[in-house]
Amino acid sequence: MKIKRSERMIDMTYYLINHPHELVSLSFFAEKYDSAKSSMSEDLAIIKKRFDAQGVGDLLTIPGAAGGVKFVPKLSQADALRKVKRIATMLSESNRLLPGGYVYLSDLLGNPYILKAIGQIIASKYADEKIDAVMTIATKGVPIAQSVASYLNVPFVIVRRDSKITEGPTVSVNYVSGSSERIEKMALSKRSLRRGSRVLVVDDFMKGGGTLNGMKSLVEEFEAELVGITVFAEGKFNGERQISDYNSLLFVSDVDLKTKTITVVPGNLFNEN
Amino acid sequence: MKIKRSERMIDMTYYLINHPHELVSLSFFAEKYDSAKSSMSEDLAIIKKRFDAQGVGDLLTIPGAAGGVKFVPKLSQADALRKVKRIATMLSESNRLLPGGYVYLSDLLGNPYILKAIGQIIASKYADEKIDAVMTIATKGVPIAQSVASYLNVPFVIVRRDSKITEGPTVSVNYVSGSSERIEKMALSKRSLRRGSRVLVVDDFMKGGGTLNGMKSLVEEFEAELVGITVFAEGKFNGERQISDYNSLLFVSDVDLKTKTITVVPGNLFNEN
Repeated sequence: MKIKRSERMIDMTYYLINHPHELVSLSFFAEKYDSAKSSMSEDLAIIKKRFDAQGVGDLLTIPGAAGGVKFVPKLSQADALRKVKRIATMLSESNRLLPGGYVYLSDLLGNPYILKAIGQIIASKYADEKIDAVMTIATKGVPIAQSVASYLNVPFVIVRRDSKITEGPTVSVNYVSGSSERIEKMALSKRSLRRGSRVLVVDDFMKGGGTLNGMKSLVEEFEAELVGITVFAEGKFNGERQISDYNSLLFVSDVDLKTKTITVVPGNLFNEN
Repeated sequence: MKIKRSERMIDMTYYLINHPHELVSLSFFAEKYDSAKSSMSEDLAIIKKRFDAQGVGDLLTIPGAAGGVKFVPKLSQADALRKVKRIATMLSESNRLLPGGYVYLSDLLGNPYILKAIGQIIASKYADEKIDAVMTIATKGVPIAQSVASYLNVPFVIVRRDSKITEGPTVSVNYVSGSSERIEKMALSKRSLRRGSRVLVVDDFMKGGGTLNGMKSLVEEFEAELVGITVFAEGKFNGERQISDYNSLLFVSDVDLKTKTITVVPGNLFNEN
């Protein structure tokens, strides 16, 4: 069906945004719009230019017979930092303070805009790596995993502390919960992850890193490969963390129950190095 | 900044898709592109036409000084049914069968495309209603709630069976778990839902409806209003369900352990009436 360029731009933009990290051949568009591949190339060059200008991501061109274009969502470091600072301001509202110095963050992890931002930022960090699956642990990690997975266009898997009959056979590991020093158990459905998968682990909050270390062991149990660990926020921790190689979007550097102050700064994802 | 129409189409499409159910004034675009409101109207008319043609949703025009446009994601019933039938085929694969006649569906609820489809279908059903929040129960309801919430552009809240210190004060209700006839407890953080909120309840799977009935009570405890209940799949249930007013995308009409057959058909959302 032949339509005008301005009209094609709408369709193609919609299509590409909904198929991130997916190779789309020129012929696909050429057939769809009954047009020459050369005009499709021109169309895509315009889209690439606008995606660049808006800081939305890259439109990669893969040459050759098996080639095409691939939309890779990617936020610039500056945009990511701007978004993270806005979230940091929200996270430091004093009414989030809970007994024991915990910080309430469930509303942020149920907000579509914030989840999109978190997903974009984490997916940008791993945009150029091969990722087969995103792993997280129930419950609050799930929205983060889902958002990251949607931008990377890969499935996500949910590790559970309780094992449910609806998961089928599971593989489980024991781990040391950092806060209580108790030995706990986490399990993942056996069929949810293939051997050799390249896995990105995400979670909402890290203190001692025990839970993340557990997921790391689980990745090993599946004979899969850990690509990275990224948390939404890390808290202050006195002592040695169980993991050292991780990224955080936010760092809750101080919680003062007396003055009711929560201090939040950008996490180590934004450290210069 | 003045750019060509074909270029504006890309930016505007991206913007609208990322701000569903949000009123965007003509002046917003006019200022952004240093153009007359009349040419913005022309641009938006083209976008509206293409969104219609692609079955992506409506671009509503709200006239008057406080007016503008609003993108309402909406799948046609035919598109929804086509997608649901594809999911039904996947759900009826015999290797999903678990002991006790349970059906494994975690992989589907971790697949970005399927979650998008589920979100679009449920959000389409409630596109013309005022919804303030989507409610679900941990764990497998979460991805569904998140996807629906992202298309409706409202927050989602997660009810839990265990109460966590990081949730702050909670409101809890008891409910009768249909499958085991046990009395159980579910809780929701007090600060997560405002009085008078209009709530859409979603979940992954319904048998007796006990869990959904619990969420219904919880909505009442919050003095909020229940707009509807939609589940991804309902199973066969011998006896009277605890709720009668619900929608399902899929109906697992039969599970035969002997022949290892799972029969799945479109749910009551697609009943003619």
